[in-house]
Amino acid sequence: MGRAGGHAVITAMSATAAGVTERDGIEDVRAADGTTWVRATDTSPDERRRLREAFDIDPLATDDVIDTVRPKTEEYPDYTFVLFKTARLAAGDTAFRDEVETTPVGLFVGPDWLVTLSVTPIEAVERVWGMVHDGRLDDDTGADRIAYRVIDGMVEGYFDVLDELEDGIETIEERVVTTTDPEVLESINEIRRELLSFRRLLWPSREAVGVLARGDAAGIRAESEKYYRDVYDHLVQLVELTVTYRDLASGARDIYLNTLSQSTNEVMKTLTVVATVVLPLTLVTGLYGMNFETMPELAWPLAYPAVLLGMVVVAVILVAYFKRERYI
Amino acid sequence: MGRAGGHAVITAMSATAAGVTERDGIEDVRAADGTTWVRATDTSPDERRRLREAFDIDPLATDDVIDTVRPKTEEYPDYTFVLFKTARLAAGDTAFRDEVETTPVGLFVGPDWLVTLSVTPIEAVERVWGMVHDGRLDDDTGADRIAYRVIDGMVEGYFDVLDELEDGIETIEERVVTTTDPEVLESINEIRRELLSFRRLLWPSREAVGVLARGDAAGIRAESEKYYRDVYDHLVQLVELTVTYRDLASGARDIYLNTLSQSTNEVMKTLTVVATVVLPLTLVTGLYGMNFETMPELAWPLAYPAVLLGMVVVAVILVAYFKRERYI
Amino acid sequence: MGRAGGHAVITAMSATAAGVTERDGIEDVRAADGTTWVRATDTSPDERRRLREAFDIDPLATDDVIDTVRPKTEEYPDYTFVLFKTARLAAGDTAFRDEVETTPVGLFVGPDWLVTLSVTPIEAVERVWGMVHDGRLDDDTGADRIAYRVIDGMVEGYFDVLDELEDGIETIEERVVTTTDPEVLESINEIRRELLSFRRLLWPSREAVGVLARGDAAGIRAESEKYYRDVYDHLVQLVELTVTYRDLASGARDIYLNTLSQSTNEVMKTLTVVATVVLPLTLVTGLYGMNFETMPELAWPLAYPAVLLGMVVVAVILVAYFKRERYI
Amino acid sequence: MGRAGGHAVITAMSATAAGVTERDGIEDVRAADGTTWVRATDTSPDERRRLREAFDIDPLATDDVIDTVRPKTEEYPDYTFVLFKTARLAAGDTAFRDEVETTPVGLFVGPDWLVTLSVTPIEAVERVWGMVHDGRLDDDTGADRIAYRVIDGMVEGYFDVLDELEDGIETIEERVVTTTDPEVLESINEIRRELLSFRRLLWPSREAVGVLARGDAAGIRAESEKYYRDVYDHLVQLVELTVTYRDLASGARDIYLNTLSQSTNEVMKTLTVVATVVLPLTLVTGLYGMNFETMPELAWPLAYPAVLLGMVVVAVILVAYFKRERYI
Amino acid sequence: MGRAGGHAVITAMSATAAGVTERDGIEDVRAADGTTWVRATDTSPDERRRLREAFDIDPLATDDVIDTVRPKTEEYPDYTFVLFKTARLAAGDTAFRDEVETTPVGLFVGPDWLVTLSVTPIEAVERVWGMVHDGRLDDDTGADRIAYRVIDGMVEGYFDVLDELEDGIETIEERVVTTTDPEVLESINEIRRELLSFRRLLWPSREAVGVLARGDAAGIRAESEKYYRDVYDHLVQLVELTVTYRDLASGARDIYLNTLSQSTNEVMKTLTVVATVVLPLTLVTGLYGMNFETMPELAWPLAYPAVLLGMVVVAVILVAYFKRERYI
Ligand SMILES: [Mg+2]
Ligand SMILES: [Mg+2]
Ligand SMILES: [Mg+2]
Ligand SMILES: [Mg+2]
Ligand SMILES: [Mg+2]
Ligand SMILES: [Mg+2]
Ligand SMILES: [Mg+2]
Ligand SMILES: [Mg+2]
Ligand SMILES: [Mg+2]
Ligand SMILES: [Mg+2]
Ligand SMILES: [Mg+2]
Ligand SMILES: [Mg+2]
Ligand SMILES: [Mg+2]
Ligand SMILES: [Mg+2]
Ligand SMILES: [Mg+2]
Ligand SMILES: [Mg+2]
Ligand SMILES: [Mg+2]
Ligand SMILES: [Mg+2]
Ligand SMILES: [Mg+2]
Ligand SMILES: [Mg+2]
Ligand SMILES: [Mg+2]
Ligand SMILES: [Mg+2]
Ligand SMILES: [Mg+2]
Ligand SMILES: [Mg+2]
Ligand SMILES: [Mg+2]
Ligand SMILES: [Mg+2]
Ligand SMILES: [Mg+2]
Ligand SMILES: [Mg+2]
Ligand SMILES: [Mg+2]
Ligand SMILES: [Mg+2]
Ligand SMILES: [Mg+2]
Repeated sequence: MGRAGGHAVITAMSATAAGVTERDGIEDVRAADGTTWVRATDTSPDERRRLREAFDIDPLATDDVIDTVRPKTEEYPDYTFVLFKTARLAAGDTAFRDEVETTPVGLFVGPDWLVTLSVTPIEAVERVWGMVHDGRLDDDTGADRIAYRVIDGMVEGYFDVLDELEDGIETIEERVVTTTDPEVLESINEIRRELLSFRRLLWPSREAVGVLARGDAAGIRAESEKYYRDVYDHLVQLVELTVTYRDLASGARDIYLNTLSQSTNEVMKTLTVVATVVLPLTLVTGLYGMNFETMPELAWPLAYPAVLLGMVVVAVILVAYFKRERYI
Repeated sequence: MGRAGGHAVITAMSATAAGVTERDGIEDVRAADGTTWVRATDTSPDERRRLREAFDIDPLATDDVIDTVRPKTEEYPDYTFVLFKTARLAAGDTAFRDEVETTPVGLFVGPDWLVTLSVTPIEAVERVWGMVHDGRLDDDTGADRIAYRVIDGMVEGYFDVLDELEDGIETIEERVVTTTDPEVLESINEIRRELLSFRRLLWPSREAVGVLARGDAAGIRAESEKYYRDVYDHLVQLVELTVTYRDLASGARDIYLNTLSQSTNEVMKTLTVVATVVLPLTLVTGLYGMNFETMPELAWPLAYPAVLLGMVVVAVILVAYFKRERYI
Repeated sequence: MGRAGGHAVITAMSATAAGVTERDGIEDVRAADGTTWVRATDTSPDERRRLREAFDIDPLATDDVIDTVRPKTEEYPDYTFVLFKTARLAAGDTAFRDEVETTPVGLFVGPDWLVTLSVTPIEAVERVWGMVHDGRLDDDTGADRIAYRVIDGMVEGYFDVLDELEDGIETIEERVVTTTDPEVLESINEIRRELLSFRRLLWPSREAVGVLARGDAAGIRAESEKYYRDVYDHLVQLVELTVTYRDLASGARDIYLNTLSQSTNEVMKTLTVVATVVLPLTLVTGLYGMNFETMPELAWPLAYPAVLLGMVVVAVILVAYFKRERYI
Repeated sequence: MGRAGGHAVITAMSATAAGVTERDGIEDVRAADGTTWVRATDTSPDERRRLREAFDIDPLATDDVIDTVRPKTEEYPDYTFVLFKTARLAAGDTAFRDEVETTPVGLFVGPDWLVTLSVTPIEAVERVWGMVHDGRLDDDTGADRIAYRVIDGMVEGYFDVLDELEDGIETIEERVVTTTDPEVLESINEIRRELLSFRRLLWPSREAVGVLARGDAAGIRAESEKYYRDVYDHLVQLVELTVTYRDLASGARDIYLNTLSQSTNEVMKTLTVVATVVLPLTLVTGLYGMNFETMPELAWPLAYPAVLLGMVVVAVILVAYFKRERYI
Repeated sequence: MGRAGGHAVITAMSATAAGVTERDGIEDVRAADGTTWVRATDTSPDERRRLREAFDIDPLATDDVIDTVRPKTEEYPDYTFVLFKTARLAAGDTAFRDEVETTPVGLFVGPDWLVTLSVTPIEAVERVWGMVHDGRLDDDTGADRIAYRVIDGMVEGYFDVLDELEDGIETIEERVVTTTDPEVLESINEIRRELLSFRRLLWPSREAVGVLARGDAAGIRAESEKYYRDVYDHLVQLVELTVTYRDLASGARDIYLNTLSQSTNEVMKTLTVVATVVLPLTLVTGLYGMNFETMPELAWPLAYPAVLLGMVVVAVILVAYFKRERYI
């Protein structure tokens, strides 16, 4: 269609063994030879209605792409609807529900047609579109295979998110050993929030792909099962990794809290050493500062240096003791 | 019926393609054309008996609506009984069992009739009643579809509860960073209590809707399955969110407890700095306050300013050391 | 039988639509019209043997009632054996295995007969016996229905136990906010022990009733399923509540431990304020207590009041600072 | 066989309704009337080979009895192999893998024969052997029934281990209330290690008996199912108890750590009271120890007793305050 | 083949009852008598293509051996593909994903052929190769049996990894009792990281072998099931052990943190004893250092020794008190 009304982009092409043909409208593309792919972005309600009519799509399904619905696969008699989402960690301080920014993509997979629908352009969709368009896909261009490539590309993006989280944990693990800055604990909490939020996305995504991997949904050929099983395995691994990373974050928190306890312990030791060395010496000076008339030692000529010497000896002994006990 | 005895309200209407007819009694409405909906609120035992007789409803079921029974779906040969509950967080300090205030609603879904029964008027019921009454439902008015709209409306209310809880957690997360006020910990505990209490409601609700989503219960048409699956998905998400929010609350608690430990650490550092700087200087003043007869330095004219200077130097060095060690 | 040998009580009655007949021996009651219920308490081995012979009961089953066996349902070809237990929290300090005091009851449910067997009289059994005896059961008096009423009565007793535990937790929650008395932590641990011990009883009880709720055990009619499903739901709820209450107890423990940390923090602040205010002032007095010959300020007439004033000013400033920092 | 080569003991007997016959070799016992039981202990590889040949036993199975393999049941066409282990808590300080000392026993249960194989004599085997030998088993002497008695006896031994662990926990629970001795924490850790190690044994044992309780393994008659179900129930209970006991150990740890925190809190209070009472008084003595020439109060006759009185009053007030605040 | 291009090593042999024949190419070995084993290491893409063609292997499968894919079993119509990995703990400080170093091995198990493919030579493969080559396998040389021996050897290596981890935990358990060195906590965290990383490997490996243990995969004979079940049991045990070891690590952490708390408690006690003994004595010296004109006791000849004696008495009493309270 190549329509220019608003920002909406709806393009269609048919891919056959002979090559790729661009289409100028969606009304008749369903009947075209080969696999027809209609890619729609930023559509108006009216455009979505026309899409639904051209492919007999359930209104509930296209609405789900606009709303904030969890990823899912819904099986219809003639096609399969997959709702999938891109993920990106939100920068800065955000509410929990916004920790992971997502954009939904709807994939409607028919026997020889595919409709992808999203509010904004999706990188994984664009990339596969380009590959199909330029004939860079050397193999099968069935609708279920193209859908697999799009979904696989989005799951790749999930690994990027997890890599970012792992980098964050590694950075924290280095910091917790030396600092008692409470910001580190907040960073750990931030990562835990992000892991929780990300896992909330992964769980339903895994289930959605699991349905496809069973291979009996409309529009999914049995020979494509193994591709979806691959994606499913990746999603299982991603979920496991969020659990594992949360354990890593807990370990980092333990070390951080211990660093603080160590600091308090050190501070107390410093105080104890100073008080234990100085207080007894002060007592001695207090003794000879008393004003009793009968204190014969006050008159001894060597009393003062002797007392000074005794105080130094006591101090040295105490310091040596504390050194041995690792107080200082 | 429009009866005015006590506060009880029992109203009935029949919805057909042609329009909605209000009914003046419940005895014959079951046989009316189209879908009959009897809405009963604050009924007497006798009125409930008449309802049961009109629709062949099991007495155990209507009793459950009055008692404090967990949400559930019970399949009967001719109809399906769904017990669902509204939820609202209780204000103020309450016993655990009262943290989430609930009002039960019984939905009896027959092939072409629906009975809703509750002790007080329920907002979701009233809203759907109005929509059916005014013909604002542009689609299917089957009993199972109307029941779906009521249940869906109540689940929407659950999301409001969860939003309130999330707001509470976000507020706490901002407070824990700066305060050691023990009330924050009590707030965290309050939220955990509310989450536990809310989850106790969600678990059986999810199971109850799960039975409907399987689509073979009496009165539930196969084509309505997908609507109930949608509600089921919402309930799954709600349960997951209570788990996630509890994790968030734990994270907030960690930060709060750390803030307190930081405070104790700071206090100890203050004490240590003061004692370490002042005690040695006091020892020096004690030395020259001793009353030995032979202390030649007491007679030196510059001894006093020299000692003062020495004390300042020692103090400055110690303070600089503690600055570098981040004690102050 | 109405036998008076020892403390054993074995009584039998037959309930038909026409009324209830007391029986004078157990040998022939099985053949009587209507439902025969034999209630046996504190029996001798010989009496149990006669019971077994009269109803063809497996010896292993009657032995289980005497021993300390977990609650269970065992299906036999002609009858179903249910071992259930009453529960009561033990007072005072007890070993873990005695935290919840239990008394086992054996229910043998045949097609038209019921045998209940226990070491001591059981309140739920006595109550239902009275109801059947006086014809106060207005409905079905089938053996499986009577057994349901006995089991349901025992499960009601479980809710009483849980209410007692919840009351204990609420009491603790009020105490933890203000006290650091270590007895509170022991109370929390006591409640956790009781919850663990109670859950140990609930788990197998839930499984035992679950078997009955499937409705195909001998002696259990399909139309009684729903009653047992009700009891099963109660037991599910009870198990969930023990988990929830344990979470509540953990929350109370967190607050208690925090109250102690707060106390230590307060103590440290008090010490730090006193030391920080007094030590510098003491240093000043030490300065002017030195015995140097050349200390011109000692001769100034206003030196003493000026020093006093300076000390007050320093003290006021420090106190104001600590007030602002919420140390006092 | 009654062979005396080395320490190996291989004995055989056949039990029929008529009585028990001891056998002098294993080669022909399989064909004997009644149930044949061959008991082999501390065998050489060659003896094990002869056993295998006499009963067509799989070499992998007899090897498992020698090796450190987990308990298991393996079903063979003609017999069932059960590997079970005795358990005993190791005394003293041991590596984790040696916390629970075990001895494996292999039971090969055929239709009318039983082979028990172990490296050292096993008490449960010896006891049942004696009972069969002396005709003290008044009932069924089928191979599966004898095997049940041996396995049941070994599980009884597991309860002894758990009783020992519970006694240990009860002892610790009494100690944690009063002591801060770090050895208590090590005892708690030791018990947790033993519970973990014991649970590692129980898990596969439960599964092994579960296979027998299903009642369709070769050599296990349907009528013996219920006996194995009994043992299975015991093992389920044992596993649950290890989880429960671990919770008890955690509760004891909480109390122990709190006792230490209480101790630190008490120590800080003592220090704070002493410093807060003494430091201000010392400041006063410092004031009147200054050497200013113009300090008129020094000349007042009642100044000294007045100051002394004032100091006592201040001290009494402070002590009363700390008493009220429960510092002392 | 024995090719020398690059470092690649591809060797083939056929094992029959008559003996082992080395093969000089892979193109025709599939048709050879007996079991053909092709062992390929460090292959080029072209060599892998030739392998695939010789045995009709799926390109996706050989790619998985090169990539970083989780262990898995994939069932193809004519053969079964097992991806398994060797494991070794990485030395030194590494990122989480590198804690356990792995090398993937692909095993393609056909009816009478086996292809093993890896990037570097694998010890378990080499060892079994040698055994087959030298006829040291006295039994079955079916492809599934050889594959079992390779996989079993790799699982043995997993036990070595776990032994290393257990040794690490035992070392830490000895250290935590005496030290407060924060490095110990980092060691505990390191072990937890390694356990998490190792478990990530074990989980999919267990699933992969579980598929083989079900015995219906292509190339796996029913009679080989029991061998794979053995390996499966080992993997179950390994996963359980990682959970158990993590619990041990947590116990060690508890003791470590307690050792630090004990240290802080000891330090505070030291400080409190010194301050409590010395401060009151210093107050006394301050008293008699005051310059009041009327202090009659200053003139008493025995006042000084009496005060000294009194101070000693007070000090002795206080020290005795603290001894009794176990402060010192
Ligand atoms: Mg963020
Ligand atoms: Mg934030
Ligand atoms: Mg955030
Ligand atoms: Mg979630
Ligand atoms: Mg997690
Ligand atoms: Mg993991
Ligand atoms: Mg409250
Ligand atoms: Mg509350
Ligand atoms: Mg509330
Ligand atoms: Mg609950
Ligand atoms: Mg939760
Ligand atoms: Mg979650
Ligand atoms: Mg106790
Ligand atoms: Mg107790
Ligand atoms: Mg108690
Ligand atoms: Mg338990
Ligand atoms: Mg629990
Ligand atoms: Mg709950
Ligand atoms: Mg040890
Ligand atoms: Mg040990
Ligand atoms: Mg031990
Ligand atoms: Mg284990
Ligand atoms: Mg456990
Ligand atoms: Mg338990
Ligand atoms: Mg903790
Ligand atoms: Mg590292
Ligand atoms: Mg590392
Ligand atoms: Mg490492
Ligand atoms: Mg993992
Ligand atoms: Mg384990
Ligand atoms: Mg474990």
